[in-house]
Amino acid sequence: MRAELLSRVLSLLPDPAHAERPELAAYHAMLRDYPARGGKGIRSDLLLASARAHGVQTGPAWEGALWLAAALELFQNWVLIHDDIEDDSEERRGRPALHRLHGVPLAINAGDGLHAYMWAAVHRAGVPGAMEAFLEMIHRTAEGQHLDLGWVEAREWRLAEGDYLDMVRLKTAYYTVVVPLQLGALAAGAAPHPDFLPAGLALGAAFQIRDDVLNLNGDAQKYGKEIGGDLLEGKRTLIVLHWLAHAPAGQREAFLTQMHRDRPDKDPAVIADIHRWLLESGSVAYAQAYADREAVTGLAALEGALAGAANPQAAQDLLGAMRTLATRDH
Amino acid sequence: MRAELLSRVLSLLPDPAHAERPELAAYHAMLRDYPARGGKGIRSDLLLASARAHGVQTGPAWEGALWLAAALELFQNWVLIHDDIEDDSEERRGRPALHRLHGVPLAINAGDGLHAYMWAAVHRAGVPGAMEAFLEMIHRTAEGQHLDLGWVEAREWRLAEGDYLDMVRLKTAYYTVVVPLQLGALAAGAAPHPDFLPAGLALGAAFQIRDDVLNLNGDAQKYGKEIGGDLLEGKRTLIVLHWLAHAPAGQREAFLTQMHRDRPDKDPAVIADIHRWLLESGSVAYAQAYADREAVTGLAALEGALAGAANPQAAQDLLGAMRTLATRDH
Repeated sequence: MRAELLSRVLSLLPDPAHAERPELAAYHAMLRDYPARGGKGIRSDLLLASARAHGVQTGPAWEGALWLAAALELFQNWVLIHDDIEDDSEERRGRPALHRLHGVPLAINAGDGLHAYMWAAVHRAGVPGAMEAFLEMIHRTAEGQHLDLGWVEAREWRLAEGDYLDMVRLKTAYYTVVVPLQLGALAAGAAPHPDFLPAGLALGAAFQIRDDVLNLNGDAQKYGKEIGGDLLEGKRTLIVLHWLAHAPAGQREAFLTQMHRDRPDKDPAVIADIHRWLLESGSVAYAQAYADREAVTGLAALEGALAGAANPQAAQDLLGAMRTLATRDH
Repeated sequence: MRAELLSRVLSLLPDPAHAERPELAAYHAMLRDYPARGGKGIRSDLLLASARAHGVQTGPAWEGALWLAAALELFQNWVLIHDDIEDDSEERRGRPALHRLHGVPLAINAGDGLHAYMWAAVHRAGVPGAMEAFLEMIHRTAEGQHLDLGWVEAREWRLAEGDYLDMVRLKTAYYTVVVPLQLGALAAGAAPHPDFLPAGLALGAAFQIRDDVLNLNGDAQKYGKEIGGDLLEGKRTLIVLHWLAHAPAGQREAFLTQMHRDRPDKDPAVIADIHRWLLESGSVAYAQAYADREAVTGLAALEGALAGAANPQAAQDLLGAMRTLATRDH
């Protein structure tokens, strides 16, 4: 996230130095922790690129776009606090997850507090339609998260490609691409193009599938997360579901045995075998080809939706940024 | 909560019968679970009484008040879902807590989803100033919750009366009394009287201290919660803090030994002894007298604030309801 945007996010949050009690200073520091760790700022960059494509670059409309960008970053951060608890993740951006530092109860509460500050940013933006867009975003993201967590809870692996795509569109694609595109239009006072929905769902799916691929075969240095981490966490991916449908029975059984164990009880040697089987199977290439097709479909739809953009050059920049995102190597 | 208000709350939530996948029907059922269990509707009743005192009884302003009342109930319910996880409570309104039915990850997520539906109700109300009031309410409630949970986490019992009161004002009094009074005014298009703040903080403290007293000496049938449950949960109350400052060293040590254990490891016989010591000490009477003074102070301030009320009869009803709440026997 850009330094200027981070300052804007932090300006909305209470300053621990002014807290009335030391415990509240600690709470305020918890609210600032995840945002201050920095993130790539993918969604806020996309929102601002969409605003520029819609002709917004200065003045009150640009201020509105900046507050919406801050709200999107706050969304990402409160969701990550709760996700990290839900997945019992160990780390976030190179440091222990918030609940590992402060315990689950305080971390749930801090996530709730940060959620409210997100709405403060939305309110501050004063952009008509933005509140509805954020409501729809949270509804869909929580539905997608329920699918994902419910499958983990039920140790459910009898899933088809369509199940994975339903989950990814709800959980990732909508908030990562659809909503940033829409918010950029709303900041300009324009009605979001209806094709932002199919375009964003396709591009968001391409983005997530590409992420799943990089998690298996990426460059750890560039990618920034643990290679193979998804396997240890038992994540449902297109790659794994495709592989399960084609793998030899012995490999499939070894996989399901590991996936029925909690993370600390998984056998690292067998996980390494599975990692190798996945890479040697055609499933990674299958998923990559799938992502490429989604990217092509999504970019075409987005190009059409931006055909009459207020700022054609900025619209080209937005398309370029979207293309890079959907085909990234880190 | 009144049946009509419950219908309004449920009308905002998705209908499981229309879900696109069975897992999402289960998620939608989770959203409806706590609201459908019913609650006393204390805060929404108070809000509507305040609206009537401000002259609102029909038309769009009354509709606005009803949506704000629905939003307050949704607030209460999402907070309870997360509170039950944070306290690892077993039951809620006579049934297992949501996380005991579905696991912690799905319950955190459902609480987040319900939080967003609360904002949908606030938005639907269309009452200027309501969004700011809800933001301030969540900020304060989360700060109070942080104090409470932080003390539990740190097993901190070196607390004074003022610490308890800081916590109760932030965590309970503000959302239980201050905000309902303010929202009633806002629904009428009036500026909330500044004395709603001190009045509501005093009345809310009286309400909570009275609840702490009933938890020790109430009639289980009427009170509806487990008598002595606060002791098992290790809750900080004015009674316990007063008693700790005056109890014989042996009793104090026995108490702290139990409080340093998790709930399942507490010794029921010793907890029963402590319960008896508390009842036999002067601390319950001390707390009750404290609550009575807060109630008198709060009612006087509220009476002053309502002196010029648009509807004097409804203002008297509001004062009567507030008096009953602060001095209730169940």
